[in-house]
Order: sequence, then structure tokens, then C-alpha cells
Amino acid sequence: MLRTHNCGELNLSNTGQTVTLSGWVQRSRDLGGMTFIDLRDRYGITQLVFNMETNAFLCEEARKLGREFVISATGQVAERSNKNPKIPTGDIEIIVNKLDILNSSKHPPFTIEDNTDGGDELRMKYRYLDLRRNPVRDNLLLRHRMAIETRNYLNNIGFIEIETPVLIKSTPEGARDFVVPSRMNEGQFYALPQSPQTFKQLLMVGGIDKYFQIVKCFRDEDLRADRQPEFTQIDCEMSFVTQDDILKTFEGLIKHLFIKVKEVEITSLPQMSFAEAMKNYGNDKPDIRFEMTFVELTDLVKGHDFRVFDDAELVVGINARGSAGYTRKQLDALTDFVKRPQVGATGMIYLRYNEDGSLKSSVDKFYNEEELKKWAAAFDARPGDLMLILAGNTNKTRKALSELRLEMGNQLGLRNPDVFAPLWVVDFPLLEWDDETQRYYAMHHPFTSPKPEDIALLDSDPGKVRANAYDLVINGVEIGGGSIRIYNRDLQKKMFTILGFSDEDAQAQFGFLMNAFEYGAPPHGGIAFGFDRMCSLFGGSESIRDYIAFPKNNAGRDVMIDSPAPIKQEQLDELHLKVTLTEKKQSN
Amino acid sequence: MLRTHNCGELNLSNTGQTVTLSGWVQRSRDLGGMTFIDLRDRYGITQLVFNMETNAFLCEEARKLGREFVISATGQVAERSNKNPKIPTGDIEIIVNKLDILNSSKHPPFTIEDNTDGGDELRMKYRYLDLRRNPVRDNLLLRHRMAIETRNYLNNIGFIEIETPVLIKSTPEGARDFVVPSRMNEGQFYALPQSPQTFKQLLMVGGIDKYFQIVKCFRDEDLRADRQPEFTQIDCEMSFVTQDDILKTFEGLIKHLFIKVKEVEITSLPQMSFAEAMKNYGNDKPDIRFEMTFVELTDLVKGHDFRVFDDAELVVGINARGSAGYTRKQLDALTDFVKRPQVGATGMIYLRYNEDGSLKSSVDKFYNEEELKKWAAAFDARPGDLMLILAGNTNKTRKALSELRLEMGNQLGLRNPDVFAPLWVVDFPLLEWDDETQRYYAMHHPFTSPKPEDIALLDSDPGKVRANAYDLVINGVEIGGGSIRIYNRDLQKKMFTILGFSDEDAQAQFGFLMNAFEYGAPPHGGIAFGFDRMCSLFGGSESIRDYIAFPKNNAGRDVMIDSPAPIKQEQLDELHLKVTLTEKKQSN
Repeated sequence: MLRTHNCGELNLSNTGQTVTLSGWVQRSRDLGGMTFIDLRDRYGITQLVFNMETNAFLCEEARKLGREFVISATGQVAERSNKNPKIPTGDIEIIVNKLDILNSSKHPPFTIEDNTDGGDELRMKYRYLDLRRNPVRDNLLLRHRMAIETRNYLNNIGFIEIETPVLIKSTPEGARDFVVPSRMNEGQFYALPQSPQTFKQLLMVGGIDKYFQIVKCFRDEDLRADRQPEFTQIDCEMSFVTQDDILKTFEGLIKHLFIKVKEVEITSLPQMSFAEAMKNYGNDKPDIRFEMTFVELTDLVKGHDFRVFDDAELVVGINARGSAGYTRKQLDALTDFVKRPQVGATGMIYLRYNEDGSLKSSVDKFYNEEELKKWAAAFDARPGDLMLILAGNTNKTRKALSELRLEMGNQLGLRNPDVFAPLWVVDFPLLEWDDETQRYYAMHHPFTSPKPEDIALLDSDPGKVRANAYDLVINGVEIGGGSIRIYNRDLQKKMFTILGFSDEDAQAQFGFLMNAFEYGAPPHGGIAFGFDRMCSLFGGSESIRDYIAFPKNNAGRDVMIDSPAPIKQEQLDELHLKVTLTEKKQSN
Repeated sequence: MLRTHNCGELNLSNTGQTVTLSGWVQRSRDLGGMTFIDLRDRYGITQLVFNMETNAFLCEEARKLGREFVISATGQVAERSNKNPKIPTGDIEIIVNKLDILNSSKHPPFTIEDNTDGGDELRMKYRYLDLRRNPVRDNLLLRHRMAIETRNYLNNIGFIEIETPVLIKSTPEGARDFVVPSRMNEGQFYALPQSPQTFKQLLMVGGIDKYFQIVKCFRDEDLRADRQPEFTQIDCEMSFVTQDDILKTFEGLIKHLFIKVKEVEITSLPQMSFAEAMKNYGNDKPDIRFEMTFVELTDLVKGHDFRVFDDAELVVGINARGSAGYTRKQLDALTDFVKRPQVGATGMIYLRYNEDGSLKSSVDKFYNEEELKKWAAAFDARPGDLMLILAGNTNKTRKALSELRLEMGNQLGLRNPDVFAPLWVVDFPLLEWDDETQRYYAMHHPFTSPKPEDIALLDSDPGKVRANAYDLVINGVEIGGGSIRIYNRDLQKKMFTILGFSDEDAQAQFGFLMNAFEYGAPPHGGIAFGFDRMCSLFGGSESIRDYIAFPKNNAGRDVMIDSPAPIKQEQLDELHLKVTLTEKKQSN
């Protein structure tokens, strides 16, 4: 080894020892007779000392070292006169008597400090330099620990990690597949998996009753800020289980991760039905760190000649406790907030419960004090509260009020990132109707089982059928989801029919699975967690990109290696492919 | 859970308990008044009993169950009168009082027993049924344990597992890449990694001094029986290390895996230079479970008018101790063996040291007894030994004798699959000359560092330059390989020049790495192990396919899901691609 110790481990107990450290020059200070160098590696920073009096040549050498030079230095550990209590090695320094310059460095394009001056694109282009910064390295360490703890927990309760194939077959239902042309099978393509769904179900048919895998998945979607074309899942499946067995098993995992990685004890993991979540939070992934649940006023407010309410399918509000002090300006800002196209409301009504017991509303001319008192009672309001009310189409209004609720949670400091409030959302609808294409889509995926008691509704009223499907939500973020699966060939075939598959398409794409169901498929179900998202939640960041070693940008490009890129004509020829650029691009 | 216990855990201590088991019907025996069913799950087999006298209805139900039906049965654990000592649950049976048929099964296309009647293709097509067989499941369990133990060992000594991207850039040096068309970047392609080589080096530049990853890699090669288009590596890299540090670190891993997974203690892990391996074993991956090293006779045998020897560049043999009893027929068979095109010798000379001390050779008429005694002395032969000698071009002869040595090892029972003899082969040449293309190729890869003392030879005699490269070989199988890397931009550039890259090509393909070397790259090196191969070695099988859950066949096809397959025209259009089938295929 080109070192005897690392830069984070020496302390007073090592005084007098001769040691060799290797690392990067973080900072160099030249104080006339002495030169100090902060040497950095993955583990910390140690101060090196060069003395002009005792070794002028070495000191001169040290003075030539620039930022990020890689050196190896040998010397004696000595107690510092000027101790630095902020770092674990702050009590000691190394009196260097041998210095090797292992590599030089150009001046880095941004400062390699906890807070850097580099912008996003620059840091992505020089990701190898960004990785030297403590916060980025700590994110990767957290991710590593999360993976190790997940594997050990699941291994200890009998799960087997099994690798499923990456080169599979395109199934054009759902998001777009990335495809991979096959050279040996002319004109044919593999696809990269959007998830190992069908393979894990086949493992259940194969008698592997507890499977998991931390696995890369791929979706060729138009990217948003928090999406990546390749992402990682903790993918799990179990046989001979009910929904409750799965929820209990993975409650265990979540609690284990919080204790081990965050030292946070999760004491409760409540369940809430999809219908309840939508009614009380307007959202299937409610942030339950704070209450402020929805109060429906529809029946209460109709018939007072206020058109907005009279015409509304739903009138619903939240009570922002203790916020009666909001100024006109603040209320206007909230109205602007709900009117933003992403939120989509047409306006906002407020009702203020003043400290003196009086009520003030923006619709005073339609409703008298007595009416408003009924509203306040519905909100269980007390003096000092502020009620915010939206009206309109049910789904749109709930969505808008959900956004307003989260905004109020932010404004009132109710969304503490150090508090973790996990929640199971259960009883999702099996199907979603799409007006545009006039057909049903699977809310989860086509393999999700309807609740046995709702199966009869499949023919009469498919939209009403509930599924044995569940999501794990933490702090308003969907961390994972899963379902009990169909394991009967006929029911699976019926699902495909409802989803608009022809028999031929269903057979061509999923025939292998339906065939497998004919050879003794056990009851089974599972779950998948978004591992990138989970790491970012544990790490307290909004962006999953911070938790990926080499992320891609919003155009799906790796700007460091400059990929994707054109390939050689011979490669295209071997694959029997021709690129047909559009006119616009060709003329460029 | 649809069970209280699994089918492998009940014994006499559970007698009297009411239990529920779920699983597959392995076998059913109808003995008039009683029906016995062997119920199977991942953990074992338990006998269920149905009694016509006490519960005729249930017994009738049980009699209808076919092989591989999935059932759940509840009953009392009872001591068996007719115990089966071969299985852990053989002392007990379940007197069933409740039976649920969870799923039926068609008659499986092959028997689901340890020894099956199913052929390879049939078992691949119904892989989900093959997985129910004990040997296949045990292989996957072994693989899981290998992965868990690898991760825990490396984690404990400070390695971080970091995921590198799967969608990268095509680098047409080496094997063929699989490419992935980018929809969002018209006419451009990602490539799937043949290994995370450049990314792990960038992690070293980024200060992550101990990296590993168990990772899928991809090569679009014409497949041989033991190759797969997607395969798994244990990929590792370290900074501030010498070759010896890496060898020691991964000796530790190998010893750990053997103890934990095989309960085998590896006491020695010798090193052998490439030159020595070629000279003594004719092979850079010698099986050292047995001696039978090469003895060169070239100087000893020339000048006796035997043209074959006089014209030969190399005359070399092995001593098969105690094999003087080989018959004429056996010797002829060995001659046929070495003359097979895969082995490539033109003939074989033998020298037999009879038990009575006399010598008998196939070239008696050219060499007298005294000469032959000198040969025998060179072989350190004793009465009863049989020496086998080949002659010709050095490389070809070594290769052929290496095959003969392994064949003799097999015939003499010297290659015991329960004995494990690992070995480091070191000091590989940096470059290989290729006559056909008249250029040098990197023996390991273009990032491998020449030995510092050989750098001067890069200009004068590149073929002589040795590399700090090493392979781990176990029982004649290459399990892993690695090298100390170049970390200097100029040396890396020079390597690309020697390998025939233009400056533009080198910059376009590997510019990001050479740029990274300008910002303080530390000395580093690493290794990668073929995980599929390693599992098959530990499991005692020749085929890596047995250790992959869903393998592809020799044409790169997954016959279970029928992939690759054509994709829809809309998918091609979105990707701006046209398939240009060759004439022959189009007319089909």
C-alpha cells in the first residue's frame, strides 16, 4: 500500500509513530518558515507540516504543490500546538520527511469543497471531481449502506436474491421500452426491462417462494427533473401470502432501514384506503406528517346564490390552524398559487376565525355570520384559525386543494425533513378509465388481482373493482408499490381482454406467463421500492440524481462521456439497420 | 400466510400440533383405505395422509389431485409408523382434516425430480418448471450465498458497492457492443457495458478508494456453449495500491468464500509467472491439482536423424507416473486425441519405463537405450512411468501438450472436483501481436499499466513489455483477472497510439478518461471475477447456464419468452430506424 493509514484515523494515541499517508492536496498555507498542507482522502483530512529550517528542500517541494495534486507523504505524528476541534484528526499533524508526488493536477473547474461554486452541468461533466466532495461521497455511502442493510435483512428472513435477465422482450403496454437490436437474429430486438415483473412471477411458479433483487430497470420516457432512463428497484415477490403478510414483511424492512441507517424508530405504520386518501388528502400519496385534512362543505354551502359553489360538484377546504393572522397580501399569494396552471383552481375562498371570535370571509355577501359559524363548526375551527376553500369538479378540486395543503404545510413548517411518517395506501381501484382512448388501463399493471369480492363487478362495472394493491408512502412521496397477483390463466386472460388486448396480442406478449399459470401457479404477490427515491428520502434531498454515481441529464444524456452518440456504419450494417433522420435534422 | 410451517421443518417435536402446509403435489399413492401425498415446497417434502374410514369425502378429494397441483392442507402432526430416514421430515406425517386446492396443473412436460427426463431445450422452454427441481434450485441458492458472502466480506474491509450506468457509449475496441437506439437523441445510440472498466477508474479519480459491484455485463459475441450475451462480474478497484496489495485483498475474499460456502480451507495461493505457466504447463491457466509438468528435450534429442525432432522448434513431454501399463490400444487412442483438430499435434512419441527397468519407445530405431536413459533422467522417471512427447512449433506444441496433460489428468483421476487449487498467474505480456491485422492488441485491455522497468521497451520492443496484470486460476479455469492501471495521461495516450488508435479516435472514445487523468488521478488497480463461472466452479458443474435463473441458448435466444422478437413499426419509426434484412432473409 502507498499508505500505512488513511487521512481520517490518526489521533494523539499515534503520536511519535512514523506513518505514510496518500491523498489529495486540499489546501496549502505558506507561513514563511513553515508550510502546512491539508491532505484529503475518502476518510478525512490530516495536516502535513514542512519546516524550512529542518528540511528546506522538502519544504520547497511542498510549496510547489497545487490544489488536487496527488501525493504520498511519510513522517512522524506529532501533537498540534494549534488544535482543530472540528475534525477527528485535529489534535495531530505529520512532520513530513519524505514526499512523493504521485500525480499533478490542473486547476479544477470548480472548488472541491462542501459548498461548491460549480453549476449542475459543470459538475455532471466533471462528475469524477464532484465525487471528491464530502456531500456527494456521503450520498453514495448512504446508498451502499441502504443496499447492504436491505440485502442482509431480506436474506435473514429467507429471501433469495436472483438475477433476472436484462435482455428480454418488448411489451408495448405501459411506458416505452428501450430496445436492443440482435445481430444474430436479423431484424429482431431484445428490450430492456421496465421491471422484472413477469420473471419474478415465473420464479414463484418455479417454487422460489421468497425472491428479491436490487435491480436496474429502464424506461424510455420523456424525462422530468426527478426521472432517469435507468433507475434501480428493490424488487420482491412472495408465494402463499395474503396482502397483510406482504405489508407486515416489508414494514419490517422499512423499520430496519430507518433504525440502522437513520437511527430513527418507526413506531406506527398505518393503513389508509385509496378512497379515504383521496377524500381526506386529495392525493393517493398523502403527507401525514401533519393533519389539515379535507373538510367537505358541498351540502352546507349550496343554495345561497353563490354561483361558484352552487355549480360546483365539490366544495372542500382545509383548516390552517393558527393562521388567522395571514395578511391580505399573503392570501392573495395563496390565490395566485392555486391559480397556477400546475395547480389548476379558478379561485380560492377563505374564512378567517378572528381571535375575538368574529368570522370574516371573502364571500360575506352571500353568507351571514350564522352560516359561516356552521362552516367553522364543520372545520372544528377555533379562534385564530384560517380556512381555505376550493370548489369545482371533484377530481380537479381535490388535486388543487392537495397542492394548497402541502404549500400551507411548507409555510407553517409542518413538513420537518427529520420526521418520517410512513403509511400504506391500500384498496386501489383495479382500473382507470381513459377518456381520450376510450378504454380502461390497469392502475397498477395487468397482473394485479381484483379483490375476490369484487370479481363479479368485472363484467358489470369494471371501474368499481378494487384491487389487492398497495403503495408505501413516506412524507408524501411514493416509495414503493405492489399487489397480490392473478395466478389463474382464465382471469389473466379476462384482464387482458378488458385492457383491450386481442387474444393474439395477449398470447404473443404474455403467452409464456399464461402457459406457466397452467402448471400449478401458487398464490403470490409482491412489491417494488424505488431505490433511488428511497435513498434521496433517507438522505434528505429532493433530487434522486444526487444519489446516483453517474446520472444522466434531463435529455437522457451522460454529459461526462458524451453519450448517446452516433455509431459506426459497420455497426449499423452488422445489425441490419438504417438510421432515417427526419427532414429537419437531416438539413442541419 | 397460507401456511403455518414449510414442508421441510416438521419433526417429532411437533407431534400433535395442528399445522397448515402449502405446496405442490410431488407424488400420490392410493393404498385402498389410505391415500398418501408427498407435498413439496422449496424447503422439502412432507407426507400427507388421508383416511377413507375417518373422512371419506376428503380422501376422495385427495385422490383427484394430479402431479404439480398446488394445495394447502391443514391437519395434525403424527408419528409415522413407517419412517423414512432419507428426509428430515421422515419421522412424521400430517393427518389432514382440511384441504384447499389452490391451483390445478396440466401434466408437466418432463418429470420434476432430481434426475429428469427433460432435454436441454425443453427444460429451458419451461424453465419455471425446471426451477422446481432440487438441483436447479440449489444452484440458485448457492449463487445467492456467494453474492451475500462476497458483499459482506468486501463491505467489512471498507469497500463500497456503487452502481455504474448500463446505458453508456459504444467503444468498438475489443468485443462487439450491444447498442440501444436513443429516441430522444435522433440517430444516436447508447451501448451496454462490456464491463464498468472506465467508470470504476473514474471512481478512483473521484477518491472512492475501494469500489466493488456485482454487475451485469454484455458482449454481442458469437456464443459458445459456456458463454452468455449477458453475464455477471464481481468488479473491484482500489487506489494507492501495488499489485501485491490487490492479490492479498482478493486472496482474502477467495478464502472467505471457500470456507463459508464450501467449508474448504485454502491454505496456499501460489503465484506463477505467465512465462513459467507457458513453459511448464503450456497454458496460462494451468490446473495445478496435479504435477505432470512439461520437460523440454529439444537439445537432448536432436542429431539422431529423426526428422520430426530435428525439424522441431520444441520437443517437450510429460511423465504420466505409473502409467507404463498403458496398452498399445490406449496409446493409439492418445495419439488420435492429440491429432484432433482442436488439439492440433501431428503425432505423439511415447517412452515406456518398464517395471523391469528396460525402456521401450516408439522411436527405438533412432535412439539407443543409453540415449533413452538420458530422456528418462530428464523426466526424473522411475520404473512404471510413461512419458508422452510432442514436437513442432513452440506455441502449437505447448498448446497440444497442455490438452494431453489435462486428458491424462482425467484418465488418471488426478482432477478431483472436490479439490480446489487456486493460483495467481502474474507478469502477463502487455501486448499481443496479431499477424492477420499486423498490429498489437492489448492482452488485458488498453488501460493496463506496463511494468515500470519495462516502459523503455515500449518504443524498442513492445512485444517484450510485461504488464502488472494477473489472473486468478482455479483448477484450470480462469476465474478472474485484473491489472494495475495507467493513471498518467501521456502514457495512456501512448498506449492508444501503439494499439493503432488515431488521436481523434482515442479522444472521441476515451477523452473523458484522459481528461480525468489531468486532475489528480491516483495510482490504482483492480480485478474482475466472472461470477457465473465462479458459481459453476463452486457448484461443481461445467456449465455456467446451470447457475443462471433464466439463461439464453447458444443462439442468444430466450426460448421461454421467445426473445429477441420483431418490434412494431411504430417503435421503429419513433427510433428513426429501418430494418434492412439481407436478400436471403427477405425472400423467406
